[in-house]
Amino acid sequence: MALIVQKYGGTSVGDLSRIRNVARRVARTLQEGNEVVVVVSAMAGETDRLIQLAYQVNDNPDLREYDALISTGEQMSVALLALALQSMGIPAKSFLGPQVRILTDDGFSQARIQKVEVQRLRKELRAGVTPVVAGFQGVDRDGNITTLGRGGSDTTGVALAAALQAEVCEIYTDVEGVYTTDPNICPEARKLSHITYDEMMELASLGAKVLQIRAVEFAKKFNIPIHVRSSFSDKNGTLVIKEDEKMERVLVSGVTYNKSEARITVVRVPDKPGIASRIFTPISDAHIVVDMIIQNSSADGYTDLTFTVPKADFKKALKLVKRTAEEIKAQEVLADENIAKVSIVGAGMRSHAGVASKMFTALAKENINILMISTSEIKISCVVEAKYGELAARVLHQAFGLDKGELRKES
Amino acid sequence: MALIVQKYGGTSVGDLSRIRNVARRVARTLQEGNEVVVVVSAMAGETDRLIQLAYQVNDNPDLREYDALISTGEQMSVALLALALQSMGIPAKSFLGPQVRILTDDGFSQARIQKVEVQRLRKELRAGVTPVVAGFQGVDRDGNITTLGRGGSDTTGVALAAALQAEVCEIYTDVEGVYTTDPNICPEARKLSHITYDEMMELASLGAKVLQIRAVEFAKKFNIPIHVRSSFSDKNGTLVIKEDEKMERVLVSGVTYNKSEARITVVRVPDKPGIASRIFTPISDAHIVVDMIIQNSSADGYTDLTFTVPKADFKKALKLVKRTAEEIKAQEVLADENIAKVSIVGAGMRSHAGVASKMFTALAKENINILMISTSEIKISCVVEAKYGELAARVLHQAFGLDKGELRKES
Repeated sequence: MALIVQKYGGTSVGDLSRIRNVARRVARTLQEGNEVVVVVSAMAGETDRLIQLAYQVNDNPDLREYDALISTGEQMSVALLALALQSMGIPAKSFLGPQVRILTDDGFSQARIQKVEVQRLRKELRAGVTPVVAGFQGVDRDGNITTLGRGGSDTTGVALAAALQAEVCEIYTDVEGVYTTDPNICPEARKLSHITYDEMMELASLGAKVLQIRAVEFAKKFNIPIHVRSSFSDKNGTLVIKEDEKMERVLVSGVTYNKSEARITVVRVPDKPGIASRIFTPISDAHIVVDMIIQNSSADGYTDLTFTVPKADFKKALKLVKRTAEEIKAQEVLADENIAKVSIVGAGMRSHAGVASKMFTALAKENINILMISTSEIKISCVVEAKYGELAARVLHQAFGLDKGELRKES
Repeated sequence: MALIVQKYGGTSVGDLSRIRNVARRVARTLQEGNEVVVVVSAMAGETDRLIQLAYQVNDNPDLREYDALISTGEQMSVALLALALQSMGIPAKSFLGPQVRILTDDGFSQARIQKVEVQRLRKELRAGVTPVVAGFQGVDRDGNITTLGRGGSDTTGVALAAALQAEVCEIYTDVEGVYTTDPNICPEARKLSHITYDEMMELASLGAKVLQIRAVEFAKKFNIPIHVRSSFSDKNGTLVIKEDEKMERVLVSGVTYNKSEARITVVRVPDKPGIASRIFTPISDAHIVVDMIIQNSSADGYTDLTFTVPKADFKKALKLVKRTAEEIKAQEVLADENIAKVSIVGAGMRSHAGVASKMFTALAKENINILMISTSEIKISCVVEAKYGELAARVLHQAFGLDKGELRKES
């Protein structure tokens, strides 16, 4: 008998018939001899509706009240799922973050889990009751309701799985797993049977929305396997697991692509200590997240400094940089919103040479000019002109053999 | 500086503009130098929407889950009101039943308050923060969310006022106060400036929906004045207070009227001990609430027994009674759904003779036949044919001078 944590996202509980569908899946898992702890998100659209209400009464809502308001979404869905399970004769009980209790810091709207108490859940499991736990929410030391930020229900699921020493945390969503790339731009995209925590974190940070990055960090820390799968299908999805000696090393397991960033270049910056700090401090003070930063080594005492920011913050960042550029007597500031970032991710890169050159060659063959390059241990990102973004992703997908998928193929 | 508890009902917070209106009223009360604790219901319609959802997933919902679900309505409205107050620069914080904490028994869906802890609220008040408390909900000893039954927010308001030793509990609703009768059937109906707890309880039990009867019991027990008033007007409403020597004794303070009951008569019942018990036990076992019961003294060893039940339970009750009537060899069972009950209520009845005869004379003058009579210390009810119901109420309203209102007139 295994203990399984099943987390269902907003689309999986999007209406009452889907909630019944989830109840049937939980019932089946129980019939197969397992114990189940269920974690659910708010019904799709509910959280957005509540956020809109908050902003309609207050332009700048206090985050304590904001959390009290939006946490009602999950409270509704846990009660409804518990009722649906009971209507099938399955003893079930709903639990909110404060009832479990999932203790967090007081960082309202993006609180971090500090401790998960599972005595109450264990007691219910022993009594044959299936607990249905509200995702996304916790409680701080003063008894205030907190929420964990977008996608926080994934983290709730993994944290509960860790605290309960569950065999696996199943994350049910509206896609069938983690794909080699976005099937919308590359029809040859294939579902991965497994992927390492590190690869998944890179993919998540590059914009793959299938899992919250903090949930993956948590799973890695406590070595909890995550099974990403669809609530609308019985097929196996993708296992997110620890890198293993026996695991076939694949050079590249995924290609990502996004157009959500813009590029700013400060031209002919005097190459002196403290210059980078002067440029980035005002930007960070404005809570703008900088992604790639590239600085070439200088020849004549001047250098060019290029970086990317989210498009939403682009105008604000540009204004700040222009002011600094004048102060530090840089020559000029260039800006470009028409860029796309394509990346390849793979744990195998660590031990293989030639991955980067293979990437650059593949892009060159299609006459795609590379504007920026940035690398990590298991990732290479290239910024290209926006119009070449989709093409670049397809080209790389093919160049690294992901369309054939001999490695880590679907089982 | 007075401490005032203000409770706002569902129509008073029915949409965002009304929530802003409530915030302005709270702000004004604070500006006048008072401390305020606000209690709010769910936005009008929200609780019904949630109840429907519960029944859609489960015909016979578990009441623990039902309470977890429907308590989200108040959670939404407290957060929204706190945000609205903050947007006017007023420090405010929302509190749920479990956060306050309002301790109840575990009678889910109609729990009773056992204890109200107000340390946290006092601390907030000392810090200059206006607490906004969710009505209708509490928490049991095991940390489960409970609700207090329809209209339970009134009880929350009065219980908090008692625990905080507030000067008054203001109940804001969509009418201007307590009226001598229903203005919809009698245009001469007048608002009462004050009324005693006992009178209010009789009126509430006769169907006046303006206050929950348990809230009035609570207020009487702790001697908390209730001020029933409109959230859409600045006029004074009706004070519900203790009977006082100095209070002008009024014979009759209100006339009520309702058509929600039906009448069942068991004809020629053998007049033996235990017969009433045999008739009413099956009805009570079926959770049907019997209102009036009339049994005449018998002359020849037989008696007629008449009683009323809610129309919704009429068919079920009739079936049960017919079965019993056969067993006890009663002659026959008569049934009548076309009845109305008119009642007069007044604390002054206790010390005045002739109130009943005045009532019967007034009805007789209009040729209204009285089918049943029932009395309490401060109430006389008559059942009449349904078609005479409104007329009977108007006749009595005039007969007892309520249309002129020399006593307890509006200040």
